[in-house]
Amino acid sequence: MSAGRRWPEWFDPDDDRTCRAVWSRICEPGDEAAGRLVLEHGPGPALKAVVEGLRVESGRRRGRAGERGDLAEGWRLRLATTDPRRDLATLARFGGRLVVPGDPEWPDQLDDLQHRTPYCLWLRGEQDLRQVCGTAIAVVGSRAATEYGEHMTVEIAGGVALRGVTIVSGAAFGVDVVAHRAALAVGAATVAVLACGVDRAYPRSHETILGRVADAGVVVSEVPPASAPTRWRFVERNRLIAALSSATVVVEAAWRSGALVTAREAEDLSRAVGAVPGSVRSVASAGCHRLLRDRHAVLVRNAQDAYQLVAPLGTVEDRPPTVEPADHDDLSPVDRLVLDAVPLRQPAGTVPVARAAGLAEPEAAAALGRLELRGLVARDRGGWRRARRRRRGGA
Amino acid sequence: MSAGRRWPEWFDPDDDRTCRAVWSRICEPGDEAAGRLVLEHGPGPALKAVVEGLRVESGRRRGRAGERGDLAEGWRLRLATTDPRRDLATLARFGGRLVVPGDPEWPDQLDDLQHRTPYCLWLRGEQDLRQVCGTAIAVVGSRAATEYGEHMTVEIAGGVALRGVTIVSGAAFGVDVVAHRAALAVGAATVAVLACGVDRAYPRSHETILGRVADAGVVVSEVPPASAPTRWRFVERNRLIAALSSATVVVEAAWRSGALVTAREAEDLSRAVGAVPGSVRSVASAGCHRLLRDRHAVLVRNAQDAYQLVAPLGTVEDRPPTVEPADHDDLSPVDRLVLDAVPLRQPAGTVPVARAAGLAEPEAAAALGRLELRGLVARDRGGWRRARRRRRGGA
Repeated sequence: MSAGRRWPEWFDPDDDRTCRAVWSRICEPGDEAAGRLVLEHGPGPALKAVVEGLRVESGRRRGRAGERGDLAEGWRLRLATTDPRRDLATLARFGGRLVVPGDPEWPDQLDDLQHRTPYCLWLRGEQDLRQVCGTAIAVVGSRAATEYGEHMTVEIAGGVALRGVTIVSGAAFGVDVVAHRAALAVGAATVAVLACGVDRAYPRSHETILGRVADAGVVVSEVPPASAPTRWRFVERNRLIAALSSATVVVEAAWRSGALVTAREAEDLSRAVGAVPGSVRSVASAGCHRLLRDRHAVLVRNAQDAYQLVAPLGTVEDRPPTVEPADHDDLSPVDRLVLDAVPLRQPAGTVPVARAAGLAEPEAAAALGRLELRGLVARDRGGWRRARRRRRGGA
Repeated sequence: MSAGRRWPEWFDPDDDRTCRAVWSRICEPGDEAAGRLVLEHGPGPALKAVVEGLRVESGRRRGRAGERGDLAEGWRLRLATTDPRRDLATLARFGGRLVVPGDPEWPDQLDDLQHRTPYCLWLRGEQDLRQVCGTAIAVVGSRAATEYGEHMTVEIAGGVALRGVTIVSGAAFGVDVVAHRAALAVGAATVAVLACGVDRAYPRSHETILGRVADAGVVVSEVPPASAPTRWRFVERNRLIAALSSATVVVEAAWRSGALVTAREAEDLSRAVGAVPGSVRSVASAGCHRLLRDRHAVLVRNAQDAYQLVAPLGTVEDRPPTVEPADHDDLSPVDRLVLDAVPLRQPAGTVPVARAAGLAEPEAAAALGRLELRGLVARDRGGWRRARRRRRGGA
């Protein structure tokens, strides 16, 4: 530590890229005071001001009374042990890359986050992040997914991936990892957004799947290599998942779930939000039901519903499920009344049928003619009875 | 049959009650042409006009081309075999009563149906219909209810009945009959609205439960005694269920379900509509999901949600389910950051904690003090570590 040195030797206020890497090291994701400073003055000049002793009152930060202080002091404390050259060397060692606003690979939709836009993104992976996020859906949900949640994740993530949509998610147990697996299984690209450095795997057991995500898509983080995942970073990470995607679908979420944070961020960003319903007896669906009840989300039943959240208007037909058509489908009200009035077995004349239907005789007679043409009633011994129901598609 | 007699001997155009009973016999429920006629001229004068040969073009009726004709001819055909004295005698025989608009027992909310208001109601039962429908919720759903649907019906119908709400439903298998049973089980009144005469039970096996409904509440129909239940009458009956109730809750409904008709009628009448979600793999929930997806219904998870549809504003607290509170609840963002930064076991000094949190030392020190007071961090060997998690309510 070299707290006495006021000008780090790597410091060059014109080196936008390096300064952004530094900002991602010295303050926590979503730090709005730092974000505003960088947005207003640019990463280099803002950093210069901090090094020169700028004082930033914590009043502008979302905080509470009794927490006043100089926020920049915290950044300077970290600055003393920061060396961006080391971070960039670590990144290079495992083939990663740094992407900053203005780069061809920078996904412009992140700018919707305004002063909460990440300073830079630390990436690894074979795909171009901007391209791969052209049409992307975040599929998020509970770590403790049920069998139902995992099934629905496979159905939705796999189904929209087949339609050419990139899946964006975290890398947690449950819905996150199942979403990646389902999309990778159909040969699609996915984006995993981490709360730790992209050189780390959290949980450790997901090292292999993260490797597969990197091979087919991109692994992303806003914190530098070697950073640990903290609860704070997990929460703030969710805004990136929401911002990178055109829509967010919550598959399963308990009452308090990070997925609900992602949904709220998506809504704040005017992105579409979907939620999959489930049994109200399942605590794993409580968060989804909350979103639906409060009308923060559209109900999503399947991949088609999810796809509809991002599909250009008019390209998806909202087809009802295949239902066995009934005999009385498409009948006019009058014909229905008359069909109702025709006896099942014992034939009846037109007048009794008309009376039972509450219609005039000519009207009933005309309806009987139409129903006969459709094979719904038959003439029998001078009267009318229902026709035998034909078996559909039967042998 | 006496088709030649133009003036039935019972006919008295000033006898509003009898004329309404006749109208309920000579035309089908929801016949808008008849409804408009009665609404415009009164039941007696309208009937007189029909007897005198009034011609009613079917153009005003919802129908299709090719179904033109004199609707009044159909009414006259039935009129020839109608004797209201016989219907009223049948009603009296089993202790029923006829209720017409203007009677103290007439539920005014039915008038919201305008020209689709029933001409009269044929009732049996121990309760006053108007009083018992003061606060009523329709609980409707699939005949083919699943175990889940029946469970939710019991939970919702029983739960709102306990809060003093009357349950209104049909008398079909599945949700209907379970709703009555659940409400009766807690000593509440229910209203069963039938598609056949109130002297009949359909299905036959529900004769006992309909008797219990009559003992504790009211059995209602708009068609006269002995009338058969037809598909048409079932469909139109749903508008009465919707109109008698302040809100309609659909528990389970397949894609094509009469319960969805009730929901649509309720919506058309500006009544609240609720729907219970379920597994998207259950066809019995497909109709509910359709209502929720199209935002025709509010998601209902339990009796409280259902009650909220009819409760006076502010009387129901929208309480979240009981959730085990977490250590970090109610912490300010700064305190959360600092708590995240405190090691679990190996103690760390204030400066490393501050750096890990990205905060200035005094700010971190203050936060550590607050966290110590809350028992979340502990001093150990000159540093800070997380406090052992206390078991809540444990032995």
